[in-house]
Amino acid sequence: MTHSSPVPANGETAPLYRRHRFLLADDVTYLDGNSLGPLPRSVPDRVATAVRDEWGDSLVKGWNDAGWFGLPTKVARRIEPLIGAESQTVSVGDSTSVNLFKVLSAALKLAGPRRRILSDAGNFPSDLYVADGLTRLVESGFHVTALPCEDVESAIGDDVAIVMLTEVDYRTGRRRDMKAVTEAAHASGAIIIWDLAHSAGAFPVRLADCGADFAVGCGYKFLNGGPGAPAFLYVAPRHADAFTPAIAGWMGHADPFAFDSSYRPAAGIQKMQAGTPAILSLTALDEALTLYDDVDLCELQAASQKLGDLFIEAVETRCPDLVLASPRAAAERGSQVSFRHPQGYAVMRALIDRNVIGDFRAPDILRFGITPLYTNEGDIRHAADVLYQVLRDRLWDREAYRVRAAVT
Amino acid sequence: MTHSSPVPANGETAPLYRRHRFLLADDVTYLDGNSLGPLPRSVPDRVATAVRDEWGDSLVKGWNDAGWFGLPTKVARRIEPLIGAESQTVSVGDSTSVNLFKVLSAALKLAGPRRRILSDAGNFPSDLYVADGLTRLVESGFHVTALPCEDVESAIGDDVAIVMLTEVDYRTGRRRDMKAVTEAAHASGAIIIWDLAHSAGAFPVRLADCGADFAVGCGYKFLNGGPGAPAFLYVAPRHADAFTPAIAGWMGHADPFAFDSSYRPAAGIQKMQAGTPAILSLTALDEALTLYDDVDLCELQAASQKLGDLFIEAVETRCPDLVLASPRAAAERGSQVSFRHPQGYAVMRALIDRNVIGDFRAPDILRFGITPLYTNEGDIRHAADVLYQVLRDRLWDREAYRVRAAVT
Repeated sequence: MTHSSPVPANGETAPLYRRHRFLLADDVTYLDGNSLGPLPRSVPDRVATAVRDEWGDSLVKGWNDAGWFGLPTKVARRIEPLIGAESQTVSVGDSTSVNLFKVLSAALKLAGPRRRILSDAGNFPSDLYVADGLTRLVESGFHVTALPCEDVESAIGDDVAIVMLTEVDYRTGRRRDMKAVTEAAHASGAIIIWDLAHSAGAFPVRLADCGADFAVGCGYKFLNGGPGAPAFLYVAPRHADAFTPAIAGWMGHADPFAFDSSYRPAAGIQKMQAGTPAILSLTALDEALTLYDDVDLCELQAASQKLGDLFIEAVETRCPDLVLASPRAAAERGSQVSFRHPQGYAVMRALIDRNVIGDFRAPDILRFGITPLYTNEGDIRHAADVLYQVLRDRLWDREAYRVRAAVT
Repeated sequence: MTHSSPVPANGETAPLYRRHRFLLADDVTYLDGNSLGPLPRSVPDRVATAVRDEWGDSLVKGWNDAGWFGLPTKVARRIEPLIGAESQTVSVGDSTSVNLFKVLSAALKLAGPRRRILSDAGNFPSDLYVADGLTRLVESGFHVTALPCEDVESAIGDDVAIVMLTEVDYRTGRRRDMKAVTEAAHASGAIIIWDLAHSAGAFPVRLADCGADFAVGCGYKFLNGGPGAPAFLYVAPRHADAFTPAIAGWMGHADPFAFDSSYRPAAGIQKMQAGTPAILSLTALDEALTLYDDVDLCELQAASQKLGDLFIEAVETRCPDLVLASPRAAAERGSQVSFRHPQGYAVMRALIDRNVIGDFRAPDILRFGITPLYTNEGDIRHAADVLYQVLRDRLWDREAYRVRAAVT
């Protein structure tokens, strides 16, 4: 969990590829860790212990004896180094949407007289929904301007209060230059909020180095925390004492067990906790994050870029019907490669039926997440082979593959 | 899960006392189900299946194949009859605080020109914190007036926009008359929000009959959903289409997989879903709720009142140092009996050390939750015996019992 090569006590570097530490069937090529990370091998026992021993035996005493009270903080400490955050700047719990609501409402209070929230029309739609809902609630003139991806940076002007962007585009995998955009926002007097949903755990994020104001991210994608795992948020230390939380809960009170009728925010990041966290889901995330104990994130990024380049080459050589939707330059990508195909949905269904699991995003995007922790060159070549066969033999051209079901 | 006696197909009524369906050690007398319900016996296997088979094997396909998308709705359908709610009026997910934030922000929009939010100074502090945080956020003149418990009803006047109350007082167990207070609120033109944290699963709640506007409640107390289980909210059908959610998330969008950049709320209660729900925690709650499949809530309430009366009698007869903090009349109590003692904290620690588990609330309240599903007369007599011994022999008067740790 470092940005430079760790050398364990035995003098050997831990191998990055650790598929044996996931419960992933041998015949599955899983390229959807950007949507839902697979099950780490140690999670089932840890969750079973939380259910039987902590809840079952400790009962209400589990809050102290099993450390449930400290669990959000423990998980936050694991996430901070993954995203280049200072110590005690991350809060874990609630969904990504609720976390975005929390930091965006803080940013509104810090924004001064400006009223424009600038975002990317290709941002996660849910991020735009949250901003829309919040501005409608407060009725103080804030409004969201969502511009085409390539027009956002040049629109950062002195009328912009808040820039709200996702570092890695969920469809194309294009990665924004966090440092340059953050500097541009600050140069114009704006606050910036980064969504790290497709960044955290995929490559080294450098929030502190870049001077980001706020960030949010997701626990169930590259962090492998399980379906609907609790999310996280980041508050730069310079803002920590500058606002009172909009969602004020007892876990963020300075003295939760005094049961004061008045809210007094806890010091620092603790105040961002609101209600009681979902302990079972949080336990799975905590355990999943141990996989990062000895991962060098720079090494992880390099491996991902290499695998991505290999996939692009293997696909483009043989599948002329596919159009690369991701940046060709590895340095401009997150940890995902996407292609366009007019029958993308059916193609992905055909692939999944053959145990090559990626996903589809409307209108025509095939997404392939690349996670070197459990994906190697053999997997990438196999996925490209199956994709080639599906297209060559029009295996996607079956009614069963065309019928839409919900796909995440 | 009915309000009148069910007759199973075999012609026999299921016994209400079903301790064998919980994993609760024989030597434990658990009187804290009002804080954290014990572990239902079927939950560990169900959660293990969700982890290994659903997440592990189905991977991202679990959203469809394992029914994760439908899980919040499935759980909501289980909760509705427990609280006397119409079909499709309950939404499950997020914490109680976030749910209160959701319904209170809806109520603000429906409130008209009035700006006073009336509450009880003895309400859950966290509910007051949420109201405080929300009013500070919106800056539109709303303010909270929290009056002493007994003064609230007479203060419901034509300046009150919203009445926000908890049906059962968390310290004393005093139960408000939901119908009378709701009618008083409506007669004065106010909206009413009920917190059912200590009601749901304890006795028949009658939201629809009483005409309540909104409600929230907790999954981990009497509903036994596990630590930090997802919470729920209720929106009366007449309000369902009258507002747009303040926390607007993709799960509440009319067409989540269209990935529209604009938010269009789903029809009815579905729009109250926000971000991705914590599936593992939600699975535990879903399984726990099966315990209510054949519970007659009126029978449950009658059994609870009988046990409560027995406890009060057994304690008052022998423990003159304890002062009853709950209403003596069973009809005015929720499913809990509380006593005051100047050394309440130490007394409770001594009790817990002897496997009689209740809890303590500052400054001097000993709380005993009563759940006839796993508590019978023998348990009640035993608890009273141990309490008597602890007081008679001053067993609480030890340094180790006086030192405060966090206790929920």
